[in-house]
Parts: sequence; C-alpha cells; structure tokens
Amino acid sequence: MPVGTQGTVKTVGSEDLEALGYSLILSNTYHLSLRPGADLIEQFGGLHKFMSWKGPILTDSGGYQVMSLAHMRKITEEGVSFKSHLDGSEHFLTPERSIQIQGQLSVDISMALDVCPPYPCTRDEAAEAMRLTHLWAPRNLAARRFFDGGEGHVSPPSLPSTDSPPSSQAVFGIVQGGVHEDLRRESAEYITSHSFDGFAVGGVSVGEPTEMQYPVVKFAAPLLPTDKPRYLMGVGHPQDILHAVGCGIDMFDCVLPTRMARHHALYTLKGRVNASGKKWAEHDGPFDEGSVFPATERYSAAYIRHLFKAGEALAGRLATLHNLAFYARLMQEIRDAIEFGSWPSLMERYKLA
Amino acid sequence: MPVGTQGTVKTVGSEDLEALGYSLILSNTYHLSLRPGADLIEQFGGLHKFMSWKGPILTDSGGYQVMSLAHMRKITEEGVSFKSHLDGSEHFLTPERSIQIQGQLSVDISMALDVCPPYPCTRDEAAEAMRLTHLWAPRNLAARRFFDGGEGHVSPPSLPSTDSPPSSQAVFGIVQGGVHEDLRRESAEYITSHSFDGFAVGGVSVGEPTEMQYPVVKFAAPLLPTDKPRYLMGVGHPQDILHAVGCGIDMFDCVLPTRMARHHALYTLKGRVNASGKKWAEHDGPFDEGSVFPATERYSAAYIRHLFKAGEALAGRLATLHNLAFYARLMQEIRDAIEFGSWPSLMERYKLA
Repeated sequence: MPVGTQGTVKTVGSEDLEALGYSLILSNTYHLSLRPGADLIEQFGGLHKFMSWKGPILTDSGGYQVMSLAHMRKITEEGVSFKSHLDGSEHFLTPERSIQIQGQLSVDISMALDVCPPYPCTRDEAAEAMRLTHLWAPRNLAARRFFDGGEGHVSPPSLPSTDSPPSSQAVFGIVQGGVHEDLRRESAEYITSHSFDGFAVGGVSVGEPTEMQYPVVKFAAPLLPTDKPRYLMGVGHPQDILHAVGCGIDMFDCVLPTRMARHHALYTLKGRVNASGKKWAEHDGPFDEGSVFPATERYSAAYIRHLFKAGEALAGRLATLHNLAFYARLMQEIRDAIEFGSWPSLMERYKLA
Repeated sequence: MPVGTQGTVKTVGSEDLEALGYSLILSNTYHLSLRPGADLIEQFGGLHKFMSWKGPILTDSGGYQVMSLAHMRKITEEGVSFKSHLDGSEHFLTPERSIQIQGQLSVDISMALDVCPPYPCTRDEAAEAMRLTHLWAPRNLAARRFFDGGEGHVSPPSLPSTDSPPSSQAVFGIVQGGVHEDLRRESAEYITSHSFDGFAVGGVSVGEPTEMQYPVVKFAAPLLPTDKPRYLMGVGHPQDILHAVGCGIDMFDCVLPTRMARHHALYTLKGRVNASGKKWAEHDGPFDEGSVFPATERYSAAYIRHLFKAGEALAGRLATLHNLAFYARLMQEIRDAIEFGSWPSLMERYKLA
C-alpha cells in the first residue's frame, strides 16, 4: 500500500496510482478526521468518492499518529485524549470512535485502535501496551458498522458478532508485545481468538534496526492464522518486505517509497541512489538500466537531477513515480515468485535494493 | 506558450503538456545558461532531448531576466554585465552570446537580445532602450547559427544574411518604444527592415495596467508585417489575449496560468476563483460547469480545496493542469473563431475570465 496520509499519495493523483497498477492504498484516520473531517467525507459518500479512488482503501486507527504527532496525549483504559497538532483543539479517541470514523470514511479495511509503544521501550511498557490493546480489541469489533444489504447502513446492537458476518465493516486486529516472544505469543493467541477479518503485527516499523525487527517478524508472523490476511504495519525497505514475506506476511504499507523520493532517494536494483548527486550531472540514461519504468522512462538521470537542483516540484513527482513503480514491481515479482517457485532467485535479484 | 523557465513547466511533465494539446512552449535562456548550463544541454543534443519535449520550443534572449533577477547589472553598447542571482558569478551577455546560447539549446525560435526598460519609465529611458535594441538587432542576426543541411552545424561568415535563408537558426526581432506611438513606429520600421523570422512587441506585459497596455498593443501590432508571426511577449490575462488577437497578434507566452495555479487561483468562464475559499469546502462538483477538463474532471472542488488547505503538492499540479487546459481551450477557440467568423460570440463568452 502506498501511503496517502491526507487522502492523497503525495505528489501523485489517483490516475497515476491506477497507471502504476496499485489496487489497495492506505490513508490516515487521524489526519482525515482533523482535516477535512470525517463528517465532510461521509457527506461525499466516503473516501473513495472524495479522492476519486476506485480501488480498495485501508485506514489505520489513528492511534499511531496520536502517539507521534498530537500534543498533551493521555492514555486511559477508556481511550486517548490529545490535542490536535493543527490547531490545539482537544479530542478523545476511543476504539468506538476510531471504528466509527473509519465507517464514516467507508473504507474497505479498518484497523482496530491499539496502543503502539514507542521503540525502544521496557518490557513493562510493552506489556501495558499489550494489555490496553487487548482490552480494546472486543470494543473495536463491537463498534463495527453493519450493512443492511442495500445502500444504507444500520448498527443493530442485537446482531451477533459471529465469525465473518457477511455484511459488516471489515476490521483487522493488531498483535502487540514488543520484542518479547512470550508477549507476542500471548497477544497473538488473544487477538486471533476474536472475529477480526485480518490480523496485523504492530509495533514493528522502519524506526527499528533490522537486527531487532527480523527476529520479531520471524516468530510473530507464524502465530497468525493462514486463512486470513497477515499484515505487517509500517514495513519497509525492499529487503525487509522480502524477509517478512518469507515469514508468511501478505500485506505491507510504508511511507519509504514516497518519502524517500522527496528526499532525492531513488530505489534501484543497484541500491538506493541519491538523484541529486554530481555523478548524474551528465548521465544521459536511467539511474539503473534494470529499473526503467513507463511513467518516467522518457527522462534522463541528468534531467531529474537538474529538476532537484533547481528546486522544481516535478522532481518530487518523477521520483515518487519511479519509487512507486519500483515497489509495485517488487510486489508483483514476489507474487510471481511464490506462484512459480522462484523465490531464491528473487532474493538474489533484490539483495542490494 | 506555457512558460518552462528552468526547462520544465512547473509541476507538470512533458507528457502532461502533450495531453493538454500544447505544441510550442517557452523556456528561459538566462536560467538554463546558469543551471544546468548551455554546454551540458548542447551535449545532450539540445533542450528538446534534455527535457524530452518533441514539440517546438522558443527561448527568450535572457535580457529580461538579467534586468529583473540578476545583480550589479551594467548596460553598455557592447552588452550587459551582471552577477548571477544563484551564486554571484560574473557574466557578460551580448547579442552574439545570447544567440550562441540559444543555438546551443537548439531551440526552434530564438529571440534577439533587446533592452526592455522597466515600467514606468521616462520617454528618454524608453528612447535609450530602443536605441540599444536597434544597435543590437543586426548583431543578433549576424550571430545566427547556420546549418549544413545534415545533423552538424556550421557558422560560415561567408554565407549571406538574406531574407529567409533556408537553414539557419530562426531569430525573432523585438520592437521597443514604450508607450510612445512615434517611438514604436520608428522601432517597428527599423526592426522589420531586417531579415528576422518573426517579430515581437516587447516591453508590454502583465506588470502594466490594462489602460496602458491596450493602446500600445492597438497601435504597435498593425506596424508588424502580416506574413510573419507577430508575438506579444509576456501577455497575459485571457481578456488581454483576446484584445491583442483582435489587434493582429498571433503568439503569446505568459506565466499567469501556471503561477496563478500555485497561488490557488483557477481560471473559469465565471472569472478567476480562489480554490482554497470556504465556499468550495462542501462543493461536490467542478469550480465551474463550463470549465471542466479531462485532466482534472475526476476531482471535485472540495477535494482540490482540501489539498490546498493541507499543503499537498498535488494541489498545485491539479490547479496547473486546470489552468493550462483553460488557456489551451481559449487559444483553440480563438483559432476557431477566426476561421469560422464567430469572434463577437467568443468575446462575449470570455468577458469575465
């Protein structure tokens, strides 16, 4: 999933994402609920219509942004109170409120509100985050919006929360537990005992060094049921994705391809390159012969470098298109390698990227 | 002509300009010669190949930017000395150097180096600017690059500078004279007596109030021969373009559609609108039913407003695509109105825009 924080994947339009072959994208409940507001997006018929995106959308719960962006946050068993980073206004986010907002956005996949402790944290902090996450898990599920089979929505408290109700808002549960195998096991057992539509490994992201991330993914991924989507949140580098797929993960979101693009960093099969580096000044060809994509192939490395040096907005756009194309190809090649049994050669192909 | 100052029309790619139906674009000799440098672009085979633009390109002479952007400029009969606004390096621009640089860029239309006095200026200043412009006119022509009929270029001093030599760098002459009809007449007589490939009215741009610009265009445009392109530099608003076409002008360049877009201003048949205005917050439709274009029609006014309010780069791009589409349609409708004799109804249609 490319990340479309504010209802837009930075610098590119929905037509670009379609051309790149993306289907599922991620957007952020925290940002959208503050601006332009969930009520406005609901009034437009949901986020798909608001941003003109026909494919599926997943939203996070807002919890991660509350922890990393908002001010004066305070966590209780009831929920999280915080002040908006935009205007200082006070808000209170609960599992019920998060699921309700995601319902207003009419997204295809909602994420349960959890508590994601910052890295590094003590074992006690990881255990407390897990405790609250577990406390909130059933409240997320209970807040799901049920559909009446037609266009309208109903939320009858009398409807049973059975496995796979045919027409309710999809909600994924999140496993916490930090770097502690016993906590992860406890969390996976508890979370997967609930009727979520998919399961995520939370609290493992690009902020953590690879040597911490890999062992956690390695023991946490196999704890998730194989008959539902398994999603590793916020990961990652191409080699991190390959490692995680090898452990059983199915889904990813990451800001790296788009954020790195705006910082002049382009993904290639020869590694990540600095597009504004002097070595490209006279290079009348691509940054990497093995990473040439339709969206940007008409432009030389020298031209894109010139755009970056000149501070032109087109630079960020072309770099974003390049990186998103690189990641789209990576994911397609992963699917192909699984289908055709060519995993070892794929690992070899991407060992530098 | 959309303006591509640094070898890029801000926020859009060559593929976007092609889709919008543009053919001729403008780029700036001053900017390109400082960064990335004319030698580099020549090494790439010219600006077309460097920026991947297959259509024709016109470059200005660099004189206007030297006057408005560079530091420590000093004009003599020989040329203009100045310091780069980028790094303070010293440069000396002459008619010969300007034409040489434009030859290195391999553009389709080069503009003669002239002296464009700032507005407002005294009659003496306008007369002196005209005198230097006239002094330099033949030097621009003499510096033209001649082609040998093949891929290579030759500059044989023995070749005669006759009317319409079949294979030389195209150069347009520029008429000066400020707001003074007698000076404009004198300048037009002198400049058009030379074998330029087209003629421009200089020193009339968006910086001037309409009440000054219109009379000048009205008496200056008919002074130019009708068998060669007549170009009004730096104009302008849609109504200014319509007025000038009515006076006989054929060609325009202007930063307004792209610059205004980045300042949230969108052109519509109902006038220019502020895309970030509160009135669009809940508007699930276009800014103007009469100004809906393929490049942006999938996005509502409310969504584009949201992008502007959220500081998203996509906002500037969509607004630029909108404005460029508006101007492309304006120019197409002007051509149609001339061909089909429907000029009065066209003036009526655009009276607010």
